[in-house]
Amino acid sequence: EILAAIESQLSDGPLKGVKAIVTSGPTREAIDPVRFIANRSSGKQGHAIASALAALGAEVTLVSGPVSIPDPTGLAVVKVESAVQMLNAVRSRLPAHVVVCAAAVADWTVANRATEKRKKKVGDPPPTIELTPNPDILMTVSKAEGPLRPTLVVGFAAETEKLMEHAADKLARKGCDWIVANDVSEGTGTFGGDANTVHVLDSDGVESWPAMGKEEVARKLAERIAKALGKA
Amino acid sequence: EILAAIESQLSDGPLKGVKAIVTSGPTREAIDPVRFIANRSSGKQGHAIASALAALGAEVTLVSGPVSIPDPTGLAVVKVESAVQMLNAVRSRLPAHVVVCAAAVADWTVANRATEKRKKKVGDPPPTIELTPNPDILMTVSKAEGPLRPTLVVGFAAETEKLMEHAADKLARKGCDWIVANDVSEGTGTFGGDANTVHVLDSDGVESWPAMGKEEVARKLAERIAKALGKA
Repeated sequence: EILAAIESQLSDGPLKGVKAIVTSGPTREAIDPVRFIANRSSGKQGHAIASALAALGAEVTLVSGPVSIPDPTGLAVVKVESAVQMLNAVRSRLPAHVVVCAAAVADWTVANRATEKRKKKVGDPPPTIELTPNPDILMTVSKAEGPLRPTLVVGFAAETEKLMEHAADKLARKGCDWIVANDVSEGTGTFGGDANTVHVLDSDGVESWPAMGKEEVARKLAERIAKALGKA
Repeated sequence: EILAAIESQLSDGPLKGVKAIVTSGPTREAIDPVRFIANRSSGKQGHAIASALAALGAEVTLVSGPVSIPDPTGLAVVKVESAVQMLNAVRSRLPAHVVVCAAAVADWTVANRATEKRKKKVGDPPPTIELTPNPDILMTVSKAEGPLRPTLVVGFAAETEKLMEHAADKLARKGCDWIVANDVSEGTGTFGGDANTVHVLDSDGVESWPAMGKEEVARKLAERIAKALGKA
């Protein structure tokens, strides 16, 4: 792995000189000091994309939520917990040529966060958790102005129903260049699993890829990115 | 590790013939197919207790929520997600001589769980998460009747304030025999960390142990359990 890291740093791959930021994993939104809201993202797909871009010679920063998979070698890793921390980490590293938002960022954070652990009291009704929208990292990056707008912004759509409809809507609303749509319904095993079936949407239409390993998805996506940047 | 496992299975330790159930780790309560509520428990303390009991010759079942640490060897591991699943796993394995409830079980589960991923819609107010109490595993085991009541039931209290007050209250309310109280405030590094400072409360009073590694806490606790069962 150390050798692989050195190789990728010395490599003259097609993405040499290209600065990439990849977000990966879930975010955690604190309810109180011990409890939080999270999601089932394992970080496998995002981490694989960061590695694949680095393997093509890109200078990669991986901004990762809490995951239990190892840090990839040959690139910079920034660990964050919440969506706000993830946005700040991404924003502070702009400009970049390409930003891939593969993290499963919480749409909402907790509005009534407690500073001490909420206690269950006999007879008291259970508390309710009030939510408030998180900043939208994909939209913020896509709508950045001037030199802060990356050449290419790639978002992910993880859906359990109406996959293509939600993905097309996301592409239009967020202002990103591509959406990689994948079905994360329970039966598919995508969240946490090693395989993925994705559809790449852009202004030209949809490209549907067959089911393949997440590392293979990452390699194909990195090659598509190199091509889009005129580097392959 | 394989050797250690064989050794413990062949061992004639003081807890030979003693059946133990240990719960460990957090639980996850689903909000929808991809989001859940969890907590910062790493499972390190509970897993170490299970291993320490097995090392003294006990026949141990570890009932564990989702953790990223490896399964201990030389004992049976049952993986669960929610508090209800954890309770069912424990209950189906009774009777036992000793039950140690070290898991950080969610006090509440989600009352308005969604079967499809909740969508963020522009203009819509954010959803609220309504909670409802989970079954109380420690109390259920402690108040089990007849042969289903273990000889010794040990609970944990993880608090961020008024540690001893909350722990004494828990001992009285739950009907368990011991409470192991530990401070999990952010500064202490207990949740996720390798060290712990605990206080063991029983009907005789409080025994405060100095800060030590979680494996050392586990060894001391296993020895105390052997003594309480008249086995050491």
